Amino acid sequence: MSAPNLVVVGSVAYDSIETNARAEKDVLGGSATYFSLASQVLAPTGVVAVVGNDFKPEHKHLLAHRGIDLAGLVTEAGETFRWGGKYDDELKDRETLFTLLNVFADFSPKLPESYKSAPYIFLANIDPDLQLDVLKQCTAPKFVALDTMNFWIQGKPDSLLQLLPRIDAIFINDTEAFELTGQRNLLLAARWIHQHGTPIAVIKKGEHGAVIIAKDDVMVVPAFLLTDVADPTGAGDSFAGGMVGALARLDDTSPDSLRTAAAVGTIAASFCVQEFGPGRLANLDLATMQTRLREFWSRIRIPGTVL
Amino acid sequence: MSAPNLVVVGSVAYDSIETNARAEKDVLGGSATYFSLASQVLAPTGVVAVVGNDFKPEHKHLLAHRGIDLAGLVTEAGETFRWGGKYDDELKDRETLFTLLNVFADFSPKLPESYKSAPYIFLANIDPDLQLDVLKQCTAPKFVALDTMNFWIQGKPDSLLQLLPRIDAIFINDTEAFELTGQRNLLLAARWIHQHGTPIAVIKKGEHGAVIIAKDDVMVVPAFLLTDVADPTGAGDSFAGGMVGALARLDDTSPDSLRTAAAVGTIAASFCVQEFGPGRLANLDLATMQTRLREFWSRIRIPGTVL
Repeated sequence: MSAPNLVVVGSVAYDSIETNARAEKDVLGGSATYFSLASQVLAPTGVVAVVGNDFKPEHKHLLAHRGIDLAGLVTEAGETFRWGGKYDDELKDRETLFTLLNVFADFSPKLPESYKSAPYIFLANIDPDLQLDVLKQCTAPKFVALDTMNFWIQGKPDSLLQLLPRIDAIFINDTEAFELTGQRNLLLAARWIHQHGTPIAVIKKGEHGAVIIAKDDVMVVPAFLLTDVADPTGAGDSFAGGMVGALARLDDTSPDSLRTAAAVGTIAASFCVQEFGPGRLANLDLATMQTRLREFWSRIRIPGTVL
Repeated sequence: MSAPNLVVVGSVAYDSIETNARAEKDVLGGSATYFSLASQVLAPTGVVAVVGNDFKPEHKHLLAHRGIDLAGLVTEAGETFRWGGKYDDELKDRETLFTLLNVFADFSPKLPESYKSAPYIFLANIDPDLQLDVLKQCTAPKFVALDTMNFWIQGKPDSLLQLLPRIDAIFINDTEAFELTGQRNLLLAARWIHQHGTPIAVIKKGEHGAVIIAKDDVMVVPAFLLTDVADPTGAGDSFAGGMVGALARLDDTSPDSLRTAAAVGTIAASFCVQEFGPGRLANLDLATMQTRLREFWSRIRIPGTVL
């Protein structure tokens, strides 16, 4: 296998998911799983993660069969990271029922030799000290993005502040952006992020889409409306996988490519939520993604009419 | 004054507004006020409404000075409609503190002769029986839109159902659309609206923008992000004023014009919320609107890149 040009460091997990229509245990999940299933459609992706020796060969096979590079997927004695969540009837809010770190508790991500020169890097939502450690192992990063959450914003703000000048983009929910920055406005929160060293703020608004705010460019990407939403788990990670995957595919991070990539992220997330768990992403191909991208384009198009 | 080609029937009121930055009593407000201040920038607009004999000459002058046709603004003995509301710190949710219908309680809208042949009609949020009554007075309607709210959905569902096949577009909040239709999904709610006779559903999502769903066309219009939001009062009515005003200006309701018009609606709402009360709308001109429309266009633009 040739070297991946996109590397994601994050979790590969077993999720227990409850919606009002369905409840299932030990569904293949985790940030690196959703991210890589989306990004692999666009660019050769390598995963850095740890699983327990209970991780099923069929799940490893599923990822490998998609072409995802698993040289960085380590198996340790013990159980795989487990997360349980329950959604409300509208699939909007969710309650975390349990988080069992298991082998993830001692995760110390090591990039295989073949990953170290990858130009596109995504540091999924893990301890910022580990994110820093991964960054140090990268020899030729061209575009580094990270995701984070309230837990780290509250628990390790200094490590996050160290990371901000060293990355190109941060992926963050709106409420988390407000918490990180102390601002209550998306544009002002993005300005804070720019001032702290990260040139691109990707602020996710769930079912309402995302805004991507670079220093001189604001772009707003609504979500792709669907009639059939089965399970929002992994939507944020597949958004990131689609977006960073598209940048890696285009091998360009100009404003125009960022715009296209953000739309691809929205499309990837829309496929993700249509089935329970990662099932839809695991069967997604580029042509299908491109077809929905055209449909999305037609939905947001405004003619340049002069009033 | 020549006959208006856009007529709005609604309220002209005095609002008491409280935000965490400012509280003021008897601010000029009402659905017809916000609508017409926005629409008049685009198309000659006539207002049908009632005020009390406490309505200040300066406010009548403000509307007339903008060029709004006030032939349909009736003054009755008694007090003007008053509404009081208080916003939360993030200016997202608001609590109604009081509603005093006053002269509005006996409002029986009558179109002046010069309004009856107007092609564009907006029935702002009033009793659906009055909306029906207004419709009967229109002799040459080309495009009729109405706004409604939970109060009428619960209180006069039969009258609303009678209206739906007689109008071209309904303006409604997402939660109200769910209540009206019994659906919990924007696309399915729009389908219900189509099936009940209204070809265009304009579903407003507040700070997240709007979706406009026609039978064969879905369009998604995000809000125009701002750093300075002072007061959301009137945002929905100025969105409608901008949108229907643009349709009247273009004198075209094709899908492309609907798209442009929806963007103009978003722009009108964005100006509205930047100042307390209707102050910013009262000073808005077409060139300023067009400049922000171009900025909006650049924010939502996605290049047609092939992946």
